[in-house]
Amino acid sequence: MKTVHVPVSVPYDVLIGPGLLPSLGGRVRDLCPRAARFLLVTDDNVGPLWAAACVKSLESAGLAGDVFTLPHGEASKTAGNLIEILSFAAQHRLTRSDVFLALGGGMTGDLTGLAAATFLRGVDYIQIPTTLLAAVDSSVGGKTAVDLPAGKNLMGAFWQPRLVLCDTDTLSTLGPGDFVSGCAEAVKMGMLFDPDLFALLTRDGPDFDRETVIARSVELKRDVVAEDEFDRGRRALLNLGHTLGHAVEAESGFTLSHGQCVAIGMAVVCRAAAKYGVCPPDLPARLEAALDRFGLPTRTDIPFPALMERMLSDKKRAGGTIGVIVPKAVGRCAVRPMSTEEAGAFMKAGL
Amino acid sequence: MKTVHVPVSVPYDVLIGPGLLPSLGGRVRDLCPRAARFLLVTDDNVGPLWAAACVKSLESAGLAGDVFTLPHGEASKTAGNLIEILSFAAQHRLTRSDVFLALGGGMTGDLTGLAAATFLRGVDYIQIPTTLLAAVDSSVGGKTAVDLPAGKNLMGAFWQPRLVLCDTDTLSTLGPGDFVSGCAEAVKMGMLFDPDLFALLTRDGPDFDRETVIARSVELKRDVVAEDEFDRGRRALLNLGHTLGHAVEAESGFTLSHGQCVAIGMAVVCRAAAKYGVCPPDLPARLEAALDRFGLPTRTDIPFPALMERMLSDKKRAGGTIGVIVPKAVGRCAVRPMSTEEAGAFMKAGL
Repeated sequence: MKTVHVPVSVPYDVLIGPGLLPSLGGRVRDLCPRAARFLLVTDDNVGPLWAAACVKSLESAGLAGDVFTLPHGEASKTAGNLIEILSFAAQHRLTRSDVFLALGGGMTGDLTGLAAATFLRGVDYIQIPTTLLAAVDSSVGGKTAVDLPAGKNLMGAFWQPRLVLCDTDTLSTLGPGDFVSGCAEAVKMGMLFDPDLFALLTRDGPDFDRETVIARSVELKRDVVAEDEFDRGRRALLNLGHTLGHAVEAESGFTLSHGQCVAIGMAVVCRAAAKYGVCPPDLPARLEAALDRFGLPTRTDIPFPALMERMLSDKKRAGGTIGVIVPKAVGRCAVRPMSTEEAGAFMKAGL
Repeated sequence: MKTVHVPVSVPYDVLIGPGLLPSLGGRVRDLCPRAARFLLVTDDNVGPLWAAACVKSLESAGLAGDVFTLPHGEASKTAGNLIEILSFAAQHRLTRSDVFLALGGGMTGDLTGLAAATFLRGVDYIQIPTTLLAAVDSSVGGKTAVDLPAGKNLMGAFWQPRLVLCDTDTLSTLGPGDFVSGCAEAVKMGMLFDPDLFALLTRDGPDFDRETVIARSVELKRDVVAEDEFDRGRRALLNLGHTLGHAVEAESGFTLSHGQCVAIGMAVVCRAAAKYGVCPPDLPARLEAALDRFGLPTRTDIPFPALMERMLSDKKRAGGTIGVIVPKAVGRCAVRPMSTEEAGAFMKAGL
């Protein structure tokens, strides 16, 4: 088992390794000694596989509780489901000392985290990521959110989990789509901060060692989050590929996965950076080769004006400017504030 | 003008006095220098009276923005309206550097505060209370919330305003119901912490000096909030009269105002405390006399089992216990944890 400590306002550990689920109850009991009840939120893909093991462990530790099951998929990350979870928790008489658990991927984690942030003005929650994407990225850092019709992640909060328990056995049940989405985020972390991770992923492709890559990605993310918990500065780097990626994701009607869209977004800004002369001319080919190892796309045929309109309503805008994350080398990227026109011209150059 | 400084995680001032609205824009500009746009939330009673003055001041200071108007009344404090405000803000392209303003009473303040807490994971907001209730209580302390069908304030967050601007001129337009609700909270603050304030209110009745009573109530609340920002201890005292009060409010179908219900709740626990011998036998009469000065009720004919059921779903429960706030003397109360059965028997004794 690997442990990554995250020293934010309320510090917590990320535990990564096989066979961890049976230890869940004891750990929750230690971290939340006043908790009597739990609410485990999961989806209808993950729940049938792993919820019973979680409940068994929690009950063995003396906690009683209930399971709330969402339809799987990003389309469940709605304000309506948030209200459903909060109402369910109230009906089942959870109190401020009780605990929420998110068992699943990014949708479940983001939604459950926001439910925990807002139920009775905030209760403890535990992340149990079961997708590579959630393990390397969304379960760590305390960003919670739901989507609104007007855009992704428009409603949310910073609310840190008390524990992230990543049992790598649960990842073995991933579908191939879930898996490559996580690979895209791992490649992103390498591109941003760590040439060694980038090289390892390019070399090993889909056969990389799970525990090593997850732990390294979480460590890299932890370093950024610890420095900028509330996303006022350096944390913006983690949006590499996301400004365009979110636009592609929305325009595709969510037929493309988050990771596929981030891969396209990274490739676009990297090609643009090369054209603008801010990175070496061979960098796009190196990034495309890494992404290609995982079957990730690097181009989109969605018309540019539609993407631009989506980007304008994206939350990363601050006062008419977009902070575009621009690759300079493997392991080194920079936030470059651009006017919306500049950003549009830049991205268009990389399409 | 009186200024009360609130030294919480992000400190802010409460300004109280006449003629303050025209200074709004300049103050927002100083506090939120990166803000380019504003969203002013108000209701259809208050908006026609005071929104134009706010907008004029904000525009004079170089900010552009829009007004979102809610139907007046507690029934508007819903998750549905929260989503409406967030969607409106997104459609009007507010960013994380922009600012929300709440112009109105407690409903507007609680709802707008939660919208600010959750829009793009948190933006600045300003409270402009226009009811005595909001001025003395809800606009200070950073508790934001909406009601769900399952109960009051079930969804919320701690999110501090950047400024509370209480222009006492706006209070002159209060209806009599709004006014006495605020008086109930002021009597509560006297009962909890300050025999002088209690005596002043009993002596002057509805003719008390607005600026003095608001500033004193805010100071008293500030002292509690500064010590216990996230409501883990001493802040529970502020719930004097609220455990039963919320139950009465819900059971009355919101035909009774918040202040009327808190008055009933305070009187009930005070009579119970006298019967249990934890306060002097003359205390209930003194409290009832103070409340009577403002025409506030001190009894309810709602059947006890219905109130008890409501209390069980109230958020103040923690692990099967209720923290009942018990008066011991004017200016001195205590939190007494009781099992739900004990609390029921106690309250019943005071009905």
